[in-house]
Amino acid sequence: MIEKLTIIGVGLIGGSLARALREAEHVREIVGYGRSVGSLQQAVELGVIDRAEVSLTDAARDADIVVLASPIGAMPEILTALKPVLNDRIIVTDVGSVKGDVISAARHILGAHFARFVPGHPLAGTEQSGVAASLADLFQRRRVILTPESETDSAALARVRAMWEIAGAQTVTMSAEEHDRILATSSHLPHMLAYCLVDMVVRHDDYRAIMECAAGGFRDTTRIAASDAVMWRDICLANREALLAAMRQYQEDFSALIAAIEKGDGAALLQTFTRAKHVRDSLNKKL
Amino acid sequence: MIEKLTIIGVGLIGGSLARALREAEHVREIVGYGRSVGSLQQAVELGVIDRAEVSLTDAARDADIVVLASPIGAMPEILTALKPVLNDRIIVTDVGSVKGDVISAARHILGAHFARFVPGHPLAGTEQSGVAASLADLFQRRRVILTPESETDSAALARVRAMWEIAGAQTVTMSAEEHDRILATSSHLPHMLAYCLVDMVVRHDDYRAIMECAAGGFRDTTRIAASDAVMWRDICLANREALLAAMRQYQEDFSALIAAIEKGDGAALLQTFTRAKHVRDSLNKKL
Repeated sequence: MIEKLTIIGVGLIGGSLARALREAEHVREIVGYGRSVGSLQQAVELGVIDRAEVSLTDAARDADIVVLASPIGAMPEILTALKPVLNDRIIVTDVGSVKGDVISAARHILGAHFARFVPGHPLAGTEQSGVAASLADLFQRRRVILTPESETDSAALARVRAMWEIAGAQTVTMSAEEHDRILATSSHLPHMLAYCLVDMVVRHDDYRAIMECAAGGFRDTTRIAASDAVMWRDICLANREALLAAMRQYQEDFSALIAAIEKGDGAALLQTFTRAKHVRDSLNKKL
Repeated sequence: MIEKLTIIGVGLIGGSLARALREAEHVREIVGYGRSVGSLQQAVELGVIDRAEVSLTDAARDADIVVLASPIGAMPEILTALKPVLNDRIIVTDVGSVKGDVISAARHILGAHFARFVPGHPLAGTEQSGVAASLADLFQRRRVILTPESETDSAALARVRAMWEIAGAQTVTMSAEEHDRILATSSHLPHMLAYCLVDMVVRHDDYRAIMECAAGGFRDTTRIAASDAVMWRDICLANREALLAAMRQYQEDFSALIAAIEKGDGAALLQTFTRAKHVRDSLNKKL
């Protein structure tokens, strides 16, 4: 049982975690903090949090677990503000989509308290954002990646792992470097592709006609281009090197595809599409 | 009422059209023809067609409307085989995703009968293929683009338009050039992006880990990479110039995105993502 849970940033992820733990009766009190008073009010009205605090330190004081669910660009500032109220008991964890960058900041800012900072990333979410979109079952059967460092306290890690499993998720651990490299391709690159496609269409001479002709393929391919822009700016900046490597690789592969079409190389196209279809079909079966 | 409808290629699209017209009681007899005896048998067993013919000319003889629903690469051959049975009454239409190429072939092959060839393209479908995936309501509220030429007989055009509207679709007409240019961006490019992403992952050192970490964003962005490989090879070859133009534009835009990330230009990233999100949100609202 968590006596006091503090959520910093009560949006889609923070709100869903609060709902899931409440539904599991695993938490006594949930306190929220965030930049927008309107959002906090809404979170209270929706019953997602018990109360909101307008002071970050008041929100976090004597918490068992403080969950940072803000865009990652805001985390250094939040960690700095948190530090004075941290003690030998409070566990801090985050849900950021990039881990290396957040860990560096946390190690630098938290000092000795870094041992009770448990870096985490739930692979869940939709293109929506905000507490109104939060769902108690968002993490059901979803994966949460924890990336503990050598200093990470094993009891703190176990407690965060238990929290996510009670919220319905499966937890795995890996290094932050591995996480950031893999997510650059599995998540960050697809977001770049979607944003870039929509932005190309917006600036296209045929913009209206293209949007009118947008069928299921365009819709699905670009769904995640409706994701929060600040969150994704922060991810790009925080995971810059791994993301750039993935984007450059993609660009190279896309150039090869262009070359095959230029040459009218039907055999190469068929091979590429067949290989991709095979793998994509197997992903469908897995789900 | 259509007395005899012939479907050449009884797959997702051809099968769905047959189901929709049957449900609307707009057709007396539906005859199917295709390369695979197994598929034709399945189409008969499912009640999608009344009977299958193993001869294309027998299938098409005395039909009111012959619908070409095969991959576009097979259309020249089919049109050539069809020609001997065509008369002043039989209307031929197609559902190909590229129009300029099919029209050139049809004009060349059909000669005087080209006036009763009505080029069409329903903007419907899923990543699935085959008659088992066909649905009577696949075209409900979907758009069908008709691209008549100056020679096209207006009665033939009206009859094909009526057929699609009875099947639940909204019809629009535009030039083949406009169709191919717009679809290159709204449909063909997204398919290339999805195929290329999955194929990059297949060949990636972290292949297994990436697939295990593939969440909703990856899944949606790549759904259409499960599309039929032959169909998409044919589309690439048939719409080569317009598709290449769209792909080169995308590559240029993607390079600009890479450059913004290299420079750590958060303002440019935020602007691009915000603009794309705004448009994508409006597409969500429209649907």
